[in-house]
Amino acid sequence: MMKAKLITEFIGTFFLYLMISLSAVAGNAGDFAPLAIGIGLVAICFASGQRSKAHFNPAVTAAFLTTRNQPAKESLFYCIVTIAGAALAAYVALIITPAPFQAIIDNGTGLQHSENFELIPAILSEFLFTFALVWVILNVAIAKGTEGNEFYGIAIGFVVAAGVFSVGSISGASFNPAVNVGLLIHQVIDLKLFVIYSVTQVFASLVATFIFNSIEPKSEANG
Amino acid sequence: MMKAKLITEFIGTFFLYLMISLSAVAGNAGDFAPLAIGIGLVAICFASGQRSKAHFNPAVTAAFLTTRNQPAKESLFYCIVTIAGAALAAYVALIITPAPFQAIIDNGTGLQHSENFELIPAILSEFLFTFALVWVILNVAIAKGTEGNEFYGIAIGFVVAAGVFSVGSISGASFNPAVNVGLLIHQVIDLKLFVIYSVTQVFASLVATFIFNSIEPKSEANG
Amino acid sequence: MMKAKLITEFIGTFFLYLMISLSAVAGNAGDFAPLAIGIGLVAICFASGQRSKAHFNPAVTAAFLTTRNQPAKESLFYCIVTIAGAALAAYVALIITPAPFQAIIDNGTGLQHSENFELIPAILSEFLFTFALVWVILNVAIAKGTEGNEFYGIAIGFVVAAGVFSVGSISGASFNPAVNVGLLIHQVIDLKLFVIYSVTQVFASLVATFIFNSIEPKSEANG
Amino acid sequence: MMKAKLITEFIGTFFLYLMISLSAVAGNAGDFAPLAIGIGLVAICFASGQRSKAHFNPAVTAAFLTTRNQPAKESLFYCIVTIAGAALAAYVALIITPAPFQAIIDNGTGLQHSENFELIPAILSEFLFTFALVWVILNVAIAKGTEGNEFYGIAIGFVVAAGVFSVGSISGASFNPAVNVGLLIHQVIDLKLFVIYSVTQVFASLVATFIFNSIEPKSEANG
Repeated sequence: MMKAKLITEFIGTFFLYLMISLSAVAGNAGDFAPLAIGIGLVAICFASGQRSKAHFNPAVTAAFLTTRNQPAKESLFYCIVTIAGAALAAYVALIITPAPFQAIIDNGTGLQHSENFELIPAILSEFLFTFALVWVILNVAIAKGTEGNEFYGIAIGFVVAAGVFSVGSISGASFNPAVNVGLLIHQVIDLKLFVIYSVTQVFASLVATFIFNSIEPKSEANG
Repeated sequence: MMKAKLITEFIGTFFLYLMISLSAVAGNAGDFAPLAIGIGLVAICFASGQRSKAHFNPAVTAAFLTTRNQPAKESLFYCIVTIAGAALAAYVALIITPAPFQAIIDNGTGLQHSENFELIPAILSEFLFTFALVWVILNVAIAKGTEGNEFYGIAIGFVVAAGVFSVGSISGASFNPAVNVGLLIHQVIDLKLFVIYSVTQVFASLVATFIFNSIEPKSEANG
Repeated sequence: MMKAKLITEFIGTFFLYLMISLSAVAGNAGDFAPLAIGIGLVAICFASGQRSKAHFNPAVTAAFLTTRNQPAKESLFYCIVTIAGAALAAYVALIITPAPFQAIIDNGTGLQHSENFELIPAILSEFLFTFALVWVILNVAIAKGTEGNEFYGIAIGFVVAAGVFSVGSISGASFNPAVNVGLLIHQVIDLKLFVIYSVTQVFASLVATFIFNSIEPKSEANG
Repeated sequence: MMKAKLITEFIGTFFLYLMISLSAVAGNAGDFAPLAIGIGLVAICFASGQRSKAHFNPAVTAAFLTTRNQPAKESLFYCIVTIAGAALAAYVALIITPAPFQAIIDNGTGLQHSENFELIPAILSEFLFTFALVWVILNVAIAKGTEGNEFYGIAIGFVVAAGVFSVGSISGASFNPAVNVGLLIHQVIDLKLFVIYSVTQVFASLVATFIFNSIEPKSEANG
């Protein structure tokens, strides 16, 4: 059972970051990148939800752990395989489009080199839309009132797309520590920003979880 | 129960206006703004529908009240928290992207400064697409024939997106008194237009409700 | 019962052509017009399907009639109200954006004035994508194997969007005699093209119905 | 029964390649082509899934065959009709828009003439996103845990759209031997690339199937 979950999470996060890096970081999808990422995530969620609950994101795993929907050991393995999947995708993307990535770094259009980049708005953006992502996931994947629904993939993919459209130009729109790893490998963010973003995202997830727990009738483990 | 509903409506309307202001008013999503808003609303509806019926809009609350699907007291609180959520989002958006908002106001590209703005077409646009929004909501969230459906979020988010694509350049495409509050704070509309739009939207909602009641077999409270 | 169906069809077709005329004919949605129309249609279908089966199109009504899913008298009224709805929307659209429509006609960018317009490819386009539309509708709204599904709105709206993206620049992408009426009022097509398109669309619908009948296990009236 | 399946697959693949050729190869949908193809595929999948499982792709048929979800003889016929459907669509598309196709070939903007085309990234792209497509299909159309779901069309269409957005500019984004046939007729790819792509796609499908089999509880024939 755990093997199936971990393979599913690894493959899902691999393709999530592969699509992010090719469509957005390398610019293959142009202005459509947020949509490409969002609808790709819809597909991966629907393909994975029944097996692994479709986290692809250590901040989401933190929410499942703290709501007691996932045991600690499994949560740890989830974090490892999602980070590994994103990292592998980052290196594979470099094989597929080496030139564009190089151009990003050389031309200074990457986020860390961006002249318009400002830290406070970026952190606030990551906080708010990671909160929104986890809030949506908790309500469509854990809440009793939506148990067995068939729209979870759309809800999750679409909130990410809307978030990338809203703050992509401000923070880079990661919302996900595993995606941070890919962005670090692609030198879109530096190590300092990697740490700041990851802490912010996990904190946002915990805040969303806290509010969710305060309104959800009675949360039981269903992982 | 009411607490859960109000928190859900507050968070939902907060993110609805946050996405509107960042993607459309501040221009972060460019021509994709109507799509960003629409699919973001799909996600928020699916995350909220089971708890609060996903109004995020006092004109929608008016429809629930007049169809006896919501008691008066709860309706009042819904209006308060949705307006509060939109207002908070407006101020948060100013922290995230102060410059673009300033530019909108200075450069006169905001709606109230627009040279092409004409009042009658704008009012007609707000009337028609608020009618369409409420018509869709009544039929997917209250009608007996669609009870328990899992497509309500898509229907609601997509009709808003289509409306913004259709009349965004004419009226600004609010369709929602709570959104009007945000637009007022961002100086996209002035107080006079705020009043005209709000009255028009509630009136459109009541017309939609009247027609809905004339064809719905027998409307009972299910709120 | 029939009253509810006819009101639903009237309102649905009104908004279908209102969105087509504002987003595409008047150009408010720019290159996003096919998407705006498609997702707007998704919303209207989901709001209407349970009551009226969401035709909004006399060619679709022809398919329901010939598959014995709708009596002749009701079919006639469906045709009348869908045409009336589209016609009213055409005149309302002229109130909302008179100038752009005038510009289309004056500048010769309307379809009938287009230099690139060629009749055979246009007719073939209307035939093929009306066939595709009716084929999808028959399989998601009448076929026994998909009875009670909740994806019909998405299937119908998305096939129209894909069709408009594919042949919008070739035929104008109507696929619908009621839409032809609106396009005639807006002088996008002339009377001759109106007749040619309408005949082509109904013929395409009958061909799709014929093939559908040959593979559907046993077609019974369920209207 | 088989007749209904083959007609459904033929019509589905015909429209799949017709939309690909008109929106993407002939350029009618501009930068929206990946979206047009993806949402068109959503519609066709929902219209066909209940009858034929909506393959439209010999690489997908290979996955159904090797997971014992389809007998060998039926699989062979599936391959024949999907290739025939795509080939017919290729010739029909030439009637609809002869000029643009000619322009592609003359101006050297077709893939095989593209100066930026590189074989290894192209093969890797076709491998990865055909894997993703088959992985999604296996999990939403064969896996026990998602049996009877109503989201399969969205998952399949959206993963293709995300793939075209990600690697359309690198490999042309076929992911499908039947589509290769259409691209060959349109001289977008040459015979050598046709063979390389087809082998790569079938291989990717088998790898996805192998991994799927290793985690799926107990795979039984349900075709």
